[in-house]
Amino acid sequence: MFENLGYKLEKLKANRAFEMLVVSVIILAALLAGARTYDINPSAHRLLSFLDILITVFFVVEISLRFMADQDKRDFFKSGWNIFDTVIVLASLVPVGNSEMVIVGRLLRIFRVLRMVSMIPELRILLNSLMRALPQLGYVVLLMFIIFYIYAAIGSTLFSEINPKLWGDISISLLTLFRVMTFEDWTDVMYETMEVHPLSWIFYLSFIFLTAFAFLNMVIGIVVNVIEEESHREREEQRANEPTIADLQVEIRELKELLIARK
Amino acid sequence: MFENLGYKLEKLKANRAFEMLVVSVIILAALLAGARTYDINPSAHRLLSFLDILITVFFVVEISLRFMADQDKRDFFKSGWNIFDTVIVLASLVPVGNSEMVIVGRLLRIFRVLRMVSMIPELRILLNSLMRALPQLGYVVLLMFIIFYIYAAIGSTLFSEINPKLWGDISISLLTLFRVMTFEDWTDVMYETMEVHPLSWIFYLSFIFLTAFAFLNMVIGIVVNVIEEESHREREEQRANEPTIADLQVEIRELKELLIARK
Amino acid sequence: MFENLGYKLEKLKANRAFEMLVVSVIILAALLAGARTYDINPSAHRLLSFLDILITVFFVVEISLRFMADQDKRDFFKSGWNIFDTVIVLASLVPVGNSEMVIVGRLLRIFRVLRMVSMIPELRILLNSLMRALPQLGYVVLLMFIIFYIYAAIGSTLFSEINPKLWGDISISLLTLFRVMTFEDWTDVMYETMEVHPLSWIFYLSFIFLTAFAFLNMVIGIVVNVIEEESHREREEQRANEPTIADLQVEIRELKELLIARK
Amino acid sequence: MFENLGYKLEKLKANRAFEMLVVSVIILAALLAGARTYDINPSAHRLLSFLDILITVFFVVEISLRFMADQDKRDFFKSGWNIFDTVIVLASLVPVGNSEMVIVGRLLRIFRVLRMVSMIPELRILLNSLMRALPQLGYVVLLMFIIFYIYAAIGSTLFSEINPKLWGDISISLLTLFRVMTFEDWTDVMYETMEVHPLSWIFYLSFIFLTAFAFLNMVIGIVVNVIEEESHREREEQRANEPTIADLQVEIRELKELLIARK
Repeated sequence: MFENLGYKLEKLKANRAFEMLVVSVIILAALLAGARTYDINPSAHRLLSFLDILITVFFVVEISLRFMADQDKRDFFKSGWNIFDTVIVLASLVPVGNSEMVIVGRLLRIFRVLRMVSMIPELRILLNSLMRALPQLGYVVLLMFIIFYIYAAIGSTLFSEINPKLWGDISISLLTLFRVMTFEDWTDVMYETMEVHPLSWIFYLSFIFLTAFAFLNMVIGIVVNVIEEESHREREEQRANEPTIADLQVEIRELKELLIARK
Repeated sequence: MFENLGYKLEKLKANRAFEMLVVSVIILAALLAGARTYDINPSAHRLLSFLDILITVFFVVEISLRFMADQDKRDFFKSGWNIFDTVIVLASLVPVGNSEMVIVGRLLRIFRVLRMVSMIPELRILLNSLMRALPQLGYVVLLMFIIFYIYAAIGSTLFSEINPKLWGDISISLLTLFRVMTFEDWTDVMYETMEVHPLSWIFYLSFIFLTAFAFLNMVIGIVVNVIEEESHREREEQRANEPTIADLQVEIRELKELLIARK
Repeated sequence: MFENLGYKLEKLKANRAFEMLVVSVIILAALLAGARTYDINPSAHRLLSFLDILITVFFVVEISLRFMADQDKRDFFKSGWNIFDTVIVLASLVPVGNSEMVIVGRLLRIFRVLRMVSMIPELRILLNSLMRALPQLGYVVLLMFIIFYIYAAIGSTLFSEINPKLWGDISISLLTLFRVMTFEDWTDVMYETMEVHPLSWIFYLSFIFLTAFAFLNMVIGIVVNVIEEESHREREEQRANEPTIADLQVEIRELKELLIARK
Repeated sequence: MFENLGYKLEKLKANRAFEMLVVSVIILAALLAGARTYDINPSAHRLLSFLDILITVFFVVEISLRFMADQDKRDFFKSGWNIFDTVIVLASLVPVGNSEMVIVGRLLRIFRVLRMVSMIPELRILLNSLMRALPQLGYVVLLMFIIFYIYAAIGSTLFSEINPKLWGDISISLLTLFRVMTFEDWTDVMYETMEVHPLSWIFYLSFIFLTAFAFLNMVIGIVVNVIEEESHREREEQRANEPTIADLQVEIRELKELLIARK
C-alpha cells in the first residue's frame, strides 16, 4: 500500500496541473505580501492573516509530499533547489503574532516569492547560467575592490576633515566612491574637496577612468566568453553531424592506398 | 466597370507618387499636432482646425480607397498594419468641438504620426525585428520583476514609516526602486533610510548589483542571439551557393567506387 | 622653372618634417585658443594677437603651397579634406579688431584645432569609419524621433499648464524628454506631474522603456554590422590566399575525369 | 656556501607557502591602512605604528631576499614587476614621525596594497591585458580630446561671463564638459546658459551626441578587436591540430600525380 502511495506521489510531483496550482499559490503569497504594505482595515487584515495561514499550511504539505515522493530520502537534499524551497518554507513558519517578531516574520514571508524561481524551469536555467558567469568575474571584481580600497584609503586620509559624512572612515569612503562611480551628484562631492585641495579633481577623474575601464573590460570579457563558448558548442555540434576536413583526409588517404596497392 | 475601378485602385495603392502624398499629409498632421502646443491667435487656430478637417477627410478617403482596392475584403483585415491604420484614422474622428473631449480628441490626433511607421517599409521592418527580440527577453523580464517585487515588499515593510512618499506601499516602492536603478538621486533615498537603519546600504547595493547583473546578462543574451542568428543565416546561404565538405565527401566516395569498380 | 617649383612643392607636401611643422603650428593655435580664455594682462594679450597673426599667415601660405603643388587645380577641390582645410583657414581670416565681431572671430579661430583631424591620417581614417556607420543608423534615428515627437506632443498637451518651463510647447518638451532619457533629475519632472495626473508615471516609464529599447537595438545593430563586415572581409581575404572547398571540388572532379578517361 | 644560499633563496621564492605569507602581510598592510582612517585611541595607535614597522621590515627583507635569489642581479631589474615592488617598498620607508610628512607617509603606505597585483599571477595577467588594450584606444582618445578642447574653448568664450565657476577658463570648462558627459546635473548647466543664449542647447546636445557616438565607437572597436583576435588565435590553433583545406589540396594533388604517373 505504501509503495502505491509513493508511486502516486511521484506522479503528482510531475503533474502539470499540480505545478500550476503551486505557482498560483506562490502568486497568491506574493499578492499577500504586497497587500500587507497598504493601510488596511482590521477585517481585511484578519482575512490576510487567515490566507497567510492557509498558504503556509499548503506549502508545508506540498514540501512534505515532495519529500515523501522521493524513493531515497537522501536524494531530496542533494538537489540545491529542494533545500532552497525547504529553507524558505521553514523560515516562513516564524509566527507573526509576537509584536517584536512581526517585521521579521513578514520579511521572511516575502521570500516565498522566490519559490517562483525554483518552480519555473526556464527561470532555473537562467539563474544557473547567471551563476556560471560569476566565477569568470572573480579576478576583475578583486581588481576593482583593490582600486576602490586604495582610493577609499586615500580619500579618507585627505578629505576626512572636509566632510566626515562622506569621507569619515574607509567604509563610508567606499560607499561615497560607489556613489561617484554611479555618477550620482559626484560633482557636488568633488567641488567640495576642490575648495580645499584644488587638484583633487585628479583623484575623481582617475578613479572614474580606472573603474570605467575595468568595468568595460569586464563586460567585454563576458561577451567574448559567451560568444566563444557558443561558437565552440556550435563547432562541436557540426562535428557530430557533418563530415569534417579530417574525415575527408582519411578518405583521400584510403584512395591513395587503393591506387598504390594496385600499382 | 467596377472591376476596372478595382484595378485602377490597386494601381494607385502601389503608386510611388500616391505614397509620397500620404507621407506628406502625415508630416503635415505631425506639424499640426506640434503647432497646437503653442499659444496661437484665434485666426491661426481657425486655420489649424480647417487643416485638421482636411487631413481627417484625406485619411478617411485614403483608407477607404485601400479597402476598396483589395479584391477580397477579408484580406484587408488580415494585415496587422491595415488594422493599425484603420484604428488610428477612426480614433481621430472623435470631434474636438466639445470642451470636455478637447484633450482626448487632440491626443488621439497625435497618434496619426504613428502612421509614418506603417507607411515607410524600412520602419516597418525595423519594428518587426524589434518585436521579434521581445519574447527572448520574456523570462529575464520576469526574473527582474521578481527581484523588483521582493525588494519593493521589503522596502515598504522596513522604510514606510521613514518616508511614506517613497516607500508608502508596494506600488510606490516599485517606482522608487526603478528610480534607484536609473541612479537618479539614489543616494538621497539611501542616506535618508541609513539614518534609521544604518545597514540599509546593503539593501540598495545588493539591489543595484542584482539588477545591473541581470540587465547586463539580458543585453549580452540579445547580442549573442543576434550574432548567432546572423552566422546561422550566413552558413545557410553559403550552403546554398558553395560546395560544402559533405559535397566533397560524396565526390571522393564516387572516386573510390570508380577505382574499386575497375579493379 | 615652374614645373621645377611644382615638383619641389609636391615633394614638400609629402615631407614628414613639413607635416610635423604644420601639426606643431596647429597645436600652437590650440594653445592660443586656450590661453585667450584666461584673464591676461595687456602685454600678454599683444603677444597672443601677434602670434595669432603669425599663425594665420602660416596657414594661408601652407594652403596656398598645397594648392600650387597640385598639378591639376581641380583635383585640389575634389578632396573633401582640402575643402575642409581651406574653409577653416578662410574663416579664421575674419578680423578680431571690431568689438562686435570679436567673439565671432575668436570662435572661428577655435575651429583651426579641427585641422588636426585632417593632418593626422589615423584620425582621418577613424572619422571616415565613424561617418560610414551613420547611414545605417538613419532609420533607427527616424524611429526614435517619431517616438520623441509623439511623446512631446502628448506631454505638452497634458502637462503644459503644470510647468510651462518644461512642457510649454513641443520644442521645450522635446528637450525635457531628452533630459528624461539621460535620467537627469527625471523623477523631479515626474513627481511634479504625478501630483496632478497620478497615472503620469506610465508616460515616463513607457517612454524610458521605448527609447532604451530602441537605443539598445541601435547599438546591437552596429556591433553586429561591424562584426559581420569584419568576418566577410576576413573570408574574402582567406579566399584570395588559401584554397577553398570549391577549389578542392574542381581538383577532385579533374581526378574523376582522369580516371574515367583512362577507362 | 653562498651558492647554497642562492639555491635555497630561489627555492624560497617559488615556495607556495612563502607566497601565501607575503599575500597575508599585504592584506594586513591593507587592513592597517584602513584602520588608520578611523578615530582610534592612543594605545591602539601605538599598536598600529608597531605593526607598521613590522610590515615595513618584512617587506624590506622580502625584497632583499628576492634580489639576492636572482643569479644575475641585472635580471632583477629587467622585470617591471620587480621594479614596481621595489619602488613601493622604498617609498613606504618615508618616516611618519614628522608631523609635516605624516600625510605623505600614510599615503605612500597605502600603495603597498598594490603589491597584491604583483603577487597574484591572475591579476598580473589581467592588468597586462588591460594595458595591451590601451594603445588601440590612443587615437579615439585623441579625437575625444580634440572634441572636448574645441567645445571647452567655445564654452569659455561664450559662457564665461554667465558662470565663471563653470566656464571661467578652458581648464574649468573641460571639467564642466566632463560633468556634462556623465549627465551629472547637466540640465542645470544648460538652463543657466539658455537664459542668456536661448540656442545654447545646440552646444550641449551636439556635444553629448558627438562624445556618446565617439565613446560608443570606441567600445565597439574594442569588442570587435578582441573577438577578432580570439577568432584568429582559434584558427591558428585549429591549423596546428587539424588538417586544413590546403593540406587536403596537397594530398589530392599527390593522388593526381600518382594517376598521371601510371598512365
